[in-house]
Amino acid sequence: MADFLFVPDSAGDTPLYEQIYRRFVSEIQSGSLAAGEKVPSKRRLCAHLGVSMSTVETAYSLLVAEGYLDSRPRSGYRVSPLLPLEAPAAEAPALPVSPPPAPPLADPFSTGAVDTSVFPYSSWARLTRDAVYQNPDLLQRGDPQGDRELRQVLCHFLREYRGVVCSPEQLVIGAGMEYLLDLVLQLLPREAVYALEDPGYRSTYRAVANQGLRVVPIPVDDQGMDCATLEASGATVAYVTPSHQFPLGVTMPAGRRTQLLRWAYARPDRYLIEDDYDSEFRYTSRPIPAMQGLDRRGRVVYVGTFSRSIAPSIRVAYLILPPALLARYRAQFSYAASTVSRFEQQVLCRFIGDGLYARHLRRVGGLYRARRGQLLELLSAIPHSAVTGSEAGLHLLLHLPGRDEGTLCARAAAEFGLKLRGLGEFCRAAPPRQAALVLGFAGLDRERLEAYGPALLSLCRQEPSALDKS
Amino acid sequence: MADFLFVPDSAGDTPLYEQIYRRFVSEIQSGSLAAGEKVPSKRRLCAHLGVSMSTVETAYSLLVAEGYLDSRPRSGYRVSPLLPLEAPAAEAPALPVSPPPAPPLADPFSTGAVDTSVFPYSSWARLTRDAVYQNPDLLQRGDPQGDRELRQVLCHFLREYRGVVCSPEQLVIGAGMEYLLDLVLQLLPREAVYALEDPGYRSTYRAVANQGLRVVPIPVDDQGMDCATLEASGATVAYVTPSHQFPLGVTMPAGRRTQLLRWAYARPDRYLIEDDYDSEFRYTSRPIPAMQGLDRRGRVVYVGTFSRSIAPSIRVAYLILPPALLARYRAQFSYAASTVSRFEQQVLCRFIGDGLYARHLRRVGGLYRARRGQLLELLSAIPHSAVTGSEAGLHLLLHLPGRDEGTLCARAAAEFGLKLRGLGEFCRAAPPRQAALVLGFAGLDRERLEAYGPALLSLCRQEPSALDKS
Repeated sequence: MADFLFVPDSAGDTPLYEQIYRRFVSEIQSGSLAAGEKVPSKRRLCAHLGVSMSTVETAYSLLVAEGYLDSRPRSGYRVSPLLPLEAPAAEAPALPVSPPPAPPLADPFSTGAVDTSVFPYSSWARLTRDAVYQNPDLLQRGDPQGDRELRQVLCHFLREYRGVVCSPEQLVIGAGMEYLLDLVLQLLPREAVYALEDPGYRSTYRAVANQGLRVVPIPVDDQGMDCATLEASGATVAYVTPSHQFPLGVTMPAGRRTQLLRWAYARPDRYLIEDDYDSEFRYTSRPIPAMQGLDRRGRVVYVGTFSRSIAPSIRVAYLILPPALLARYRAQFSYAASTVSRFEQQVLCRFIGDGLYARHLRRVGGLYRARRGQLLELLSAIPHSAVTGSEAGLHLLLHLPGRDEGTLCARAAAEFGLKLRGLGEFCRAAPPRQAALVLGFAGLDRERLEAYGPALLSLCRQEPSALDKS
Repeated sequence: MADFLFVPDSAGDTPLYEQIYRRFVSEIQSGSLAAGEKVPSKRRLCAHLGVSMSTVETAYSLLVAEGYLDSRPRSGYRVSPLLPLEAPAAEAPALPVSPPPAPPLADPFSTGAVDTSVFPYSSWARLTRDAVYQNPDLLQRGDPQGDRELRQVLCHFLREYRGVVCSPEQLVIGAGMEYLLDLVLQLLPREAVYALEDPGYRSTYRAVANQGLRVVPIPVDDQGMDCATLEASGATVAYVTPSHQFPLGVTMPAGRRTQLLRWAYARPDRYLIEDDYDSEFRYTSRPIPAMQGLDRRGRVVYVGTFSRSIAPSIRVAYLILPPALLARYRAQFSYAASTVSRFEQQVLCRFIGDGLYARHLRRVGGLYRARRGQLLELLSAIPHSAVTGSEAGLHLLLHLPGRDEGTLCARAAAEFGLKLRGLGEFCRAAPPRQAALVLGFAGLDRERLEAYGPALLSLCRQEPSALDKS
């Protein structure tokens, strides 16, 4: 066990499971861990290193899949007798054990939910039938950036609704934000250092790490990403969510946007990636135009998606490239076919062009406004609490000073079968200063609110001392 | 001009345009090229370096887009007076000039064509309507690997038709081969060295270079990738097209497949990527099972697509991961949503499951067999020529000993407005030993054959001396 007394580096670029995996591989390859030797149980190792069970499980499943460890029922894990470096096993390797099914918790406060009860089924079906029947040319390979007609309609829409300034030439249509982010990472130099919001999307951290690129977490204050820390960090690219920061819900004011743009203008290799997710929904004031529209020197890369405004299964997102990166894109990616079905491109093009998308946004916006109101009313009954980040988007933050998030979430699961998310889940460098829950309301229909609202109230109302010291 | 007397390295990993771009940047940053100084015209530079016009155009457009060069009408290119490192231009940067529109050449022998006249419009439209109306759950985010039902049906189909051995757990559905290849590159270690077929797909070379990974071109002989060169190359991953090598059309015999598997088994970090494109179409013997089905140690990654068997705009491809890479995938990509619309997944699932796909393959296979026959008949009238690679797939090779491909293709364009592809276009390290044309026949309907067949004949029939010395 002494061999495993290393301190995983939770602030670095390498995920914890990868650090554990590499440590075992090097111990086994150096012979410090001998063939047949028993290694710590998952439970023991996770207590020992202070990491989560799923982290250890991921590391062990990689080690078993690659033939470094053997797993035997009831006898635990041992170093594999046949080292893969010398003699690969003659037997077909076993499939890795499927991840344990998620405990069947109810998730009425999911931050990823979208209400699809108002999905425009009949228009969508009609437009799809038209697309399949009316234009045989749609079966052929289209423009790698997406069909020109869709890009034109979208460009017009984004100019009007988001204050974006671009030409259809600069738009790239792609199968989801993750795909488009992957593309952007390949257009920027490999030496780039990525500043990501902390707290922030875990998937963005993973995407950058998956390409073996460098990341620095930058704290978010009540106006968005902190510019002084950014300046000192050595980062060259900053990824921000100015319209509604995830998970804090901050809307970045104009002053901070200007500061960020100045930071980007100060050196030729600096860029901002503006993730404009959730920007379609704003409740207390007019929508704030995208930062992209303020940029006069081609330093903002803009990404948005229809997955939240229409439905998660509509895998269409869009990217606006500034001129220098557009030139890179054309040099590097002119060979690649578009990742979106042309039928679906055509449907979306008509859906936006005929005004159905704007109508859908108004309808679904009204629905979300009502759900937000009901949730705020419920939360107002919790003493010693405060709500922030509710001006826009589809989630808000409930601050609960003096409480312990972990205990709260664990009790919600155990006592009510209810999934709750603590702010700490999204923090990288430092835990949150104050306990808070991240509560989504897009999927919170009346039935779910009535079923789980009382549970949330009862959990959050209990006195800190009574609950968190147990 | 003396400054530009460098020899671009055409065998290396760095594309030529990138080498030229970097050379200019370093000359400008070091001051060897002063602000305001005139640089060679595109035409002069391309003659000087012996590279193509489009290579120089790409490099210059990057340099202009990034502010290193200014382009003035009629006065050529000069080094920008404001160096971007010191003072970024206050003006909004101009969009890069669009690539010059492709000359309007007819392309009846395209290798990427698919006949869509037999596309099953009515079944597709019916299945799509059903998908949109019948299951509201399809609007929600699905499994990152693709819907389980589709994976099951596809697994069954691939077992029966391709001899593939896998479980639905190992399948990942994604928006196109390029997307899935990008994913695989992120699962393998960054130190991996990729052996690619030479001649081979240019897009594969680009995909690997775009991620900044190392490539070695490996020659293809009449059985496929050369194993002795592969062994000596230091490569750790080999990308092969065993069912119908692109562009040579070789079908890899069982012996070579075993050799490649042995190569992969010899070290734990070695993998084979089997690109099974075109495998649906075979004319002279029964289809040869995929190499994936021979693999007993989990070293083959298998990729296939519906873009060629149904329609190019159907952006659905599939990937089979061996156990060790599946464990990696789960650790790295469990956060990502599937890149394929769930409506389209559902349509495809029913299309395969109801037997419509198998019927479609028979129908379209008969059509391609007929077109292949007509093309072979036409080519048999060309003296001193030979055809290879016509046993399978959707293209073949026409060998024309003693001829010059470049001259042939240039004359086809100039005299007949006809696009032809020389084998040399797909070669990396060494030019082809013998002139050959790569001719696709999937889009060669009777009308096109009658319009362009005579032109092809007349070009290829002329005596070498009369044509190529001109």
